Amino acid sequence: MLHAVPVEDRPALEPGVVAASVYANGQRLADIDVDDAGAWATRPGHVVWIGLLEPSEALLARVQRQFGLHELAIEDARKAHQRPKLEQYGDCVFIVARTAHMVDGRISFGETHIFVGKGYIVSVRHGASTSYAPVRQRAESCPTVLSHGEDYILYALLDFIVDNYMPVLETVNAEVEEVEDKVVAGELGQSEVMRLYMLRRDLLRLRNAASALVDVCRRVQRVEVRPIEASMQPLFRDVTDHIHRVQDEIDALREVLAFAFEASMMAGQVQQTHISRRLAAWAAILAVPTAVAGIYGMNFEFMPELKWQYGYVVVLGAVTTICLTLYYRLRKSGWL
Amino acid sequence: MLHAVPVEDRPALEPGVVAASVYANGQRLADIDVDDAGAWATRPGHVVWIGLLEPSEALLARVQRQFGLHELAIEDARKAHQRPKLEQYGDCVFIVARTAHMVDGRISFGETHIFVGKGYIVSVRHGASTSYAPVRQRAESCPTVLSHGEDYILYALLDFIVDNYMPVLETVNAEVEEVEDKVVAGELGQSEVMRLYMLRRDLLRLRNAASALVDVCRRVQRVEVRPIEASMQPLFRDVTDHIHRVQDEIDALREVLAFAFEASMMAGQVQQTHISRRLAAWAAILAVPTAVAGIYGMNFEFMPELKWQYGYVVVLGAVTTICLTLYYRLRKSGWL
Amino acid sequence: MLHAVPVEDRPALEPGVVAASVYANGQRLADIDVDDAGAWATRPGHVVWIGLLEPSEALLARVQRQFGLHELAIEDARKAHQRPKLEQYGDCVFIVARTAHMVDGRISFGETHIFVGKGYIVSVRHGASTSYAPVRQRAESCPTVLSHGEDYILYALLDFIVDNYMPVLETVNAEVEEVEDKVVAGELGQSEVMRLYMLRRDLLRLRNAASALVDVCRRVQRVEVRPIEASMQPLFRDVTDHIHRVQDEIDALREVLAFAFEASMMAGQVQQTHISRRLAAWAAILAVPTAVAGIYGMNFEFMPELKWQYGYVVVLGAVTTICLTLYYRLRKSGWL
Amino acid sequence: MLHAVPVEDRPALEPGVVAASVYANGQRLADIDVDDAGAWATRPGHVVWIGLLEPSEALLARVQRQFGLHELAIEDARKAHQRPKLEQYGDCVFIVARTAHMVDGRISFGETHIFVGKGYIVSVRHGASTSYAPVRQRAESCPTVLSHGEDYILYALLDFIVDNYMPVLETVNAEVEEVEDKVVAGELGQSEVMRLYMLRRDLLRLRNAASALVDVCRRVQRVEVRPIEASMQPLFRDVTDHIHRVQDEIDALREVLAFAFEASMMAGQVQQTHISRRLAAWAAILAVPTAVAGIYGMNFEFMPELKWQYGYVVVLGAVTTICLTLYYRLRKSGWL
Amino acid sequence: MLHAVPVEDRPALEPGVVAASVYANGQRLADIDVDDAGAWATRPGHVVWIGLLEPSEALLARVQRQFGLHELAIEDARKAHQRPKLEQYGDCVFIVARTAHMVDGRISFGETHIFVGKGYIVSVRHGASTSYAPVRQRAESCPTVLSHGEDYILYALLDFIVDNYMPVLETVNAEVEEVEDKVVAGELGQSEVMRLYMLRRDLLRLRNAASALVDVCRRVQRVEVRPIEASMQPLFRDVTDHIHRVQDEIDALREVLAFAFEASMMAGQVQQTHISRRLAAWAAILAVPTAVAGIYGMNFEFMPELKWQYGYVVVLGAVTTICLTLYYRLRKSGWL
Ligand SMILES: [Mg+2]
Ligand SMILES: [Mg+2]
Ligand SMILES: [Mg+2]
Ligand SMILES: [Mg+2]
Ligand SMILES: [Mg+2]
Ligand SMILES: [Mg+2]
Ligand SMILES: [Mg+2]
Ligand SMILES: [Mg+2]
Ligand SMILES: [Mg+2]
Ligand SMILES: [Mg+2]
Ligand SMILES: [Mg+2]
Ligand SMILES: [Mg+2]
Ligand SMILES: [Mg+2]
Ligand SMILES: [Mg+2]
Ligand SMILES: [Mg+2]
Ligand SMILES: [Mg+2]
Ligand SMILES: [Mg+2]
Ligand SMILES: [Mg+2]
Ligand SMILES: [Mg+2]
Ligand SMILES: [Mg+2]
Ligand SMILES: [Mg+2]
Ligand SMILES: [Mg+2]
Ligand SMILES: [Mg+2]
Ligand SMILES: [Mg+2]
Ligand SMILES: [Mg+2]
Ligand SMILES: [Mg+2]
Ligand SMILES: [Mg+2]
Ligand SMILES: [Mg+2]
Ligand SMILES: [Mg+2]
Ligand SMILES: [Mg+2]
Ligand SMILES: [Mg+2]
Repeated sequence: MLHAVPVEDRPALEPGVVAASVYANGQRLADIDVDDAGAWATRPGHVVWIGLLEPSEALLARVQRQFGLHELAIEDARKAHQRPKLEQYGDCVFIVARTAHMVDGRISFGETHIFVGKGYIVSVRHGASTSYAPVRQRAESCPTVLSHGEDYILYALLDFIVDNYMPVLETVNAEVEEVEDKVVAGELGQSEVMRLYMLRRDLLRLRNAASALVDVCRRVQRVEVRPIEASMQPLFRDVTDHIHRVQDEIDALREVLAFAFEASMMAGQVQQTHISRRLAAWAAILAVPTAVAGIYGMNFEFMPELKWQYGYVVVLGAVTTICLTLYYRLRKSGWL
Repeated sequence: MLHAVPVEDRPALEPGVVAASVYANGQRLADIDVDDAGAWATRPGHVVWIGLLEPSEALLARVQRQFGLHELAIEDARKAHQRPKLEQYGDCVFIVARTAHMVDGRISFGETHIFVGKGYIVSVRHGASTSYAPVRQRAESCPTVLSHGEDYILYALLDFIVDNYMPVLETVNAEVEEVEDKVVAGELGQSEVMRLYMLRRDLLRLRNAASALVDVCRRVQRVEVRPIEASMQPLFRDVTDHIHRVQDEIDALREVLAFAFEASMMAGQVQQTHISRRLAAWAAILAVPTAVAGIYGMNFEFMPELKWQYGYVVVLGAVTTICLTLYYRLRKSGWL
Repeated sequence: MLHAVPVEDRPALEPGVVAASVYANGQRLADIDVDDAGAWATRPGHVVWIGLLEPSEALLARVQRQFGLHELAIEDARKAHQRPKLEQYGDCVFIVARTAHMVDGRISFGETHIFVGKGYIVSVRHGASTSYAPVRQRAESCPTVLSHGEDYILYALLDFIVDNYMPVLETVNAEVEEVEDKVVAGELGQSEVMRLYMLRRDLLRLRNAASALVDVCRRVQRVEVRPIEASMQPLFRDVTDHIHRVQDEIDALREVLAFAFEASMMAGQVQQTHISRRLAAWAAILAVPTAVAGIYGMNFEFMPELKWQYGYVVVLGAVTTICLTLYYRLRKSGWL
Repeated sequence: MLHAVPVEDRPALEPGVVAASVYANGQRLADIDVDDAGAWATRPGHVVWIGLLEPSEALLARVQRQFGLHELAIEDARKAHQRPKLEQYGDCVFIVARTAHMVDGRISFGETHIFVGKGYIVSVRHGASTSYAPVRQRAESCPTVLSHGEDYILYALLDFIVDNYMPVLETVNAEVEEVEDKVVAGELGQSEVMRLYMLRRDLLRLRNAASALVDVCRRVQRVEVRPIEASMQPLFRDVTDHIHRVQDEIDALREVLAFAFEASMMAGQVQQTHISRRLAAWAAILAVPTAVAGIYGMNFEFMPELKWQYGYVVVLGAVTTICLTLYYRLRKSGWL
Repeated sequence: MLHAVPVEDRPALEPGVVAASVYANGQRLADIDVDDAGAWATRPGHVVWIGLLEPSEALLARVQRQFGLHELAIEDARKAHQRPKLEQYGDCVFIVARTAHMVDGRISFGETHIFVGKGYIVSVRHGASTSYAPVRQRAESCPTVLSHGEDYILYALLDFIVDNYMPVLETVNAEVEEVEDKVVAGELGQSEVMRLYMLRRDLLRLRNAASALVDVCRRVQRVEVRPIEASMQPLFRDVTDHIHRVQDEIDALREVLAFAFEASMMAGQVQQTHISRRLAAWAAILAVPTAVAGIYGMNFEFMPELKWQYGYVVVLGAVTTICLTLYYRLRKSGWL
């Protein structure tokens, strides 16, 4: 007979196991041992929910034995860096999702693998993903919906993953707007170029993660071997819609950054033309005293002007007049 | 029994409610209370039309109760910034549309959420959208079409939203042409770069809003659970066609701005080459007097030319001749 | 009874009506009054063909009444600037096509709206489109094909519209080749940039018009409510094929202009590098006499070289030698 | 009765006809007259194969009469510059293909039109296409396959056309590699820009021709009115596969040229930055003697340094020291 | 009777044959002669596995005779440089795959052609591909799976080919990151441009190879004439998934390199603007002593300042003050 640990004195969990409970009628019945999970899952109306965090191979193998999970799915769950996807093995659905959240102002990606089958759901977290404890609390506080079993838990997990993208998007959005202001003001320096580049890279990875998640969410609604309950369909559609919105906004931000690149190239060219013109204008103005001084600095014996009483004053005056005239004309024509 | 307020003494509406009326046979029967709306909607041949403007949660909840609206749709209607879309919940169709109009020379976006079901239509406005009073007036002045019920009202709302895009497009069009003239004239400065950038951003958002609306309009024609009356189909096709034209023109404008960017880069390069050449040409001309004056400014004791009577005049003449020759040759070759 | 005007004394047509005739057995039976058109159209084996040019609202309304044309189609026909499209209203097909022809060396766009139904065809021209008189003449000279009725007339109109695109394409082609020659020769100035820009805009509009026409032509072959006679199908396929070729060539020209832009940027950069190098090379050469002359122009009392008999000649010789050596080395390395 | 010319004394062919023979059981039975072709074609087990080269209208009309070819196909065959395509007119298949081969180091395009029907195949060559004599020889040397009739001849023609693209591709490939080497070495001059531009144009046209041919080859396998014999299907699939490979390689080359453009822009920019820096560095070094010489060239009466015995030597030494120090520091920082 | 060589004394293989064995019940029964292969293959439960390496035409012809391979497939297998593809000839599936692995730090591509039919599998290696010995060892060590026959061997080969892409991808990834660091640091020189260019070319070829392999893997799951056993399907799906991940990462790297190009253009422009400004600023500072020294170097007789006792000191002081003021103001404004 299965040993049901009463909820109140929940045992210390073994390493790699974040939670392992069985639910019935929308309420947690007991915290269980991983090795009893398979037996609990077969009881009608009972759902086993196991959460693993970077589990050892041995632990994964024990979970695999409990629910008869497919070897290839277990292989994927063992190594992270899988492609986000939804795979069906017999009547078990295997989902790989990329998670995103902010850590110290930079986007941090993690991976969650989910196994859903009749009477059980197993989540495996890799890397910098947030704990799913809030999902568990929310689910346990709504017995009505939780009584829909593994479908509801799957929805709650996906919804949580998708919701976590929102603050990431907002942060990136704010950064884009900051860079954008610099571009428009023509104040782009080496460090802004670097920031723009990092933003584009981050957005690329974010988009790849989000767009794969859109696919996963869409396909989860149409899994043939384990059809989602009709009454749960709107929930999954809502999650799909939210991740779709994330993807739309990422695409818009990506296009905005492409515009910013082009605008910065234009602004840079405008600026260079401006500098070239100013340089040319000043060179022209300075050429006058240089040429004149050069000429009257020559040592010819017979240069009548050098003998004139007011030669120096006249020359200085003429040079100044020409320079000022040049200055005003260049100023008027926009070169200065 | 339902309390029907005679049309002539329309009651002061509660905050958040812009209009709440019941129609039958294409005519307004009465202004009603939100809490009676559900009962009126079930009467055969009666249509309830409620218009809300940034309603409170409580008000939305009361409307939800009247028509049994789905929790997820209500959640979307509560927070703006939803993705334009068409969603079906049971026999209720939920539409999110982005609206656009000009406010102080800048495009201002708003959101309208519409719930349509058997016997009722509810619109919820968020942000800078125009009032739908003109739609109501137009509908009430055409009893024949209004007698088609909620389908016609839905059409009238979508048609109004789409028509409002036209003046926005015209304004943007005019701005594009202005920037275009500057680009072609090569008169692009920092402020034009900024304007071009802002135009591209605005067009991006406009296109995202319009293209999502194209999808919504297309799908509204093919909703399965609440099929549009056959005789109304051409009306919806016409709206789809109009928003499609808006989208086509936005796409053309976007491409035009991309051309303008490239043309401006070319024009800028042509200009820089021109300036470099002029600079080089003037430098060449000025190098002559500088070199000659330098040589005859040296203090060697034995420089025979310095003793010549006409040394100075000859040198001045030679320098002038060389400079003029250079000038004409550079002019002829297009460098000056 | 209908009043049939004998063909020989064709009456003066009312304003806005270019032609209004009835055909039977492939021959023009009579010129008719717009207000009799509906009655003629219902006679078996008879086809009414009406050509309008920017008709008044009243005239359009009369035509509408004759054939029971749909309100929305009439609305579109009233205002030009519609999207090219094919719309079905009951058993009437409504087509909007954009026409293109050359006026004073610039592409001029017009619009033609066509209504085709059982026994009638109505064309409405807007803007700078060519008269359809040649279509009428050609049709009337081929009784055999004209006896196929409105299908044949529709084909003849579309074929004429498509054929008119060909000379436009050839003109644009010639212009592209001219600009291309300048780009390749590196002779691009401000006016060529402007021309390239205008060409790209024109091609964009031409492509939008042509590609929409491809859609219209394709769909006309598959209209369900008024299927095209099987024997006429190859004719429509031929028109589709021709407009498709126009579109293919426009796309190729567009790509060619994009290449030309990139080639011009490269050529410009090559040129600037060339100018920078020459400038640097000349500056280096000129630096020698400048530095030397500066040094011997100093007024120190004890500068032994200044006293030497051949100081001046030696210095002049040394400077010349160094300058020539520099010149030949820079020349060899491609900087001059 | 038909007049069968014995194969050995083949008559002089009329102008425009390259070959006209009848085949049975995989062997050439006789060379025939164009005007007998139709009759021969109807004999069971006989196939007429006619090759035309830029035929006159009259000759085309005679061929048309023999096999009842469709007017629109004949019209296309009359004028070259058709779009590559496959068209079905009754039980006759009409194919337009673009051919490519090298003439004097440049790609030369031609056009071949093919009519295939029950018992006959007619090819019409336009422009710079290669003779199909080798196809005829190969076919005649394989009686077994030739006995499959017109299907095999069609395959042999298409295979020959596709095989002719290969050497063209190889030539272009070699040219791309050459330009690529220059780009990577940063040795791009005006003539390389021109060559790169011409290559891109040629590749564009080649791709358009090849990609249209892919379509034609694919559709020939699925012609409904004259289905290809099952045993011939792999042959046609093989041709499709080969032209597909040509298209894949063209696409790769196009992308490579786009990369080369971008790399050349980067290399050019790197080079310009390099030149600007060197120019600036030399200007800085030369500014030292210029400034010093200028100061000691002033004519003030009271400049104590000028009187010093070693003033000149000290100044020269100081200037040299500063210049050398500058030189080494700039060299170390990569500016020289 | 077939001559079965006992496994222990495996005969020296003929040139071009890497391995030729027959398997039954998941175990190697014997090494066989190529000319007996056909007979072994027809025995129920027996699978012949032949590995060829750049075989001679004669050897290929013998293999062809044994299994009745299609002439066109053999032609492809003879010449390498085929397009990756899956082709069906009767009940034989022919696969062309491109292989990739690292040789001396550069990607090296090879080609493998596979023939799979009832009871046999033949692999033909061309170019720089890795030996399939490890595949053979792995298969032979798993009798259970090997007992699935040719399907399993096909899977093992494809899995090995796909797994070999991974280290290639990692190497490229590391190189991209290196170049990226240089771009972001603005340290891009001619050699980095060249490396970036080579990376893009390599990635293009890698992507073409991988994306064609995705197609092949997908289609292998849906081959109609020789359906894959249901229990083997997940294995093939897993291979498809892995090559798909490779393709996704290549696409991401390609986009990253495009960003790097744009960032480097921006950084280059920022740098040039910076240099231009510094150059201009120094020119402005140096213009002061030059102009002043020029003026006081003129030889006018009546220049009162030249007679002043402190003229020289005052002028030197004034020049120094102006220069320092300029320096600090330019520094503050970011030009220095
Ligand atoms: Mg959510
Ligand atoms: Mg990804
Ligand atoms: Mg992805
Ligand atoms: Mg994806
Ligand atoms: Mg939602
Ligand atoms: Mg969404
Ligand atoms: Mg409207
Ligand atoms: Mg949007
Ligand atoms: Mg959107
Ligand atoms: Mg869209
Ligand atoms: Mg309309
Ligand atoms: Mg539209
Ligand atoms: Mg660009
Ligand atoms: Mg035509
Ligand atoms: Mg359009
Ligand atoms: Mg258009
Ligand atoms: Mg279009
Ligand atoms: Mg044609
Ligand atoms: Mg075409
Ligand atoms: Mg071939
Ligand atoms: Mg083509
Ligand atoms: Mg094409
Ligand atoms: Mg082949
Ligand atoms: Mg293709
Ligand atoms: Mg191919
Ligand atoms: Mg680019
Ligand atoms: Mg693997
Ligand atoms: Mg590919
Ligand atoms: Mg490939
Ligand atoms: Mg896997
Ligand atoms: Mg992949």
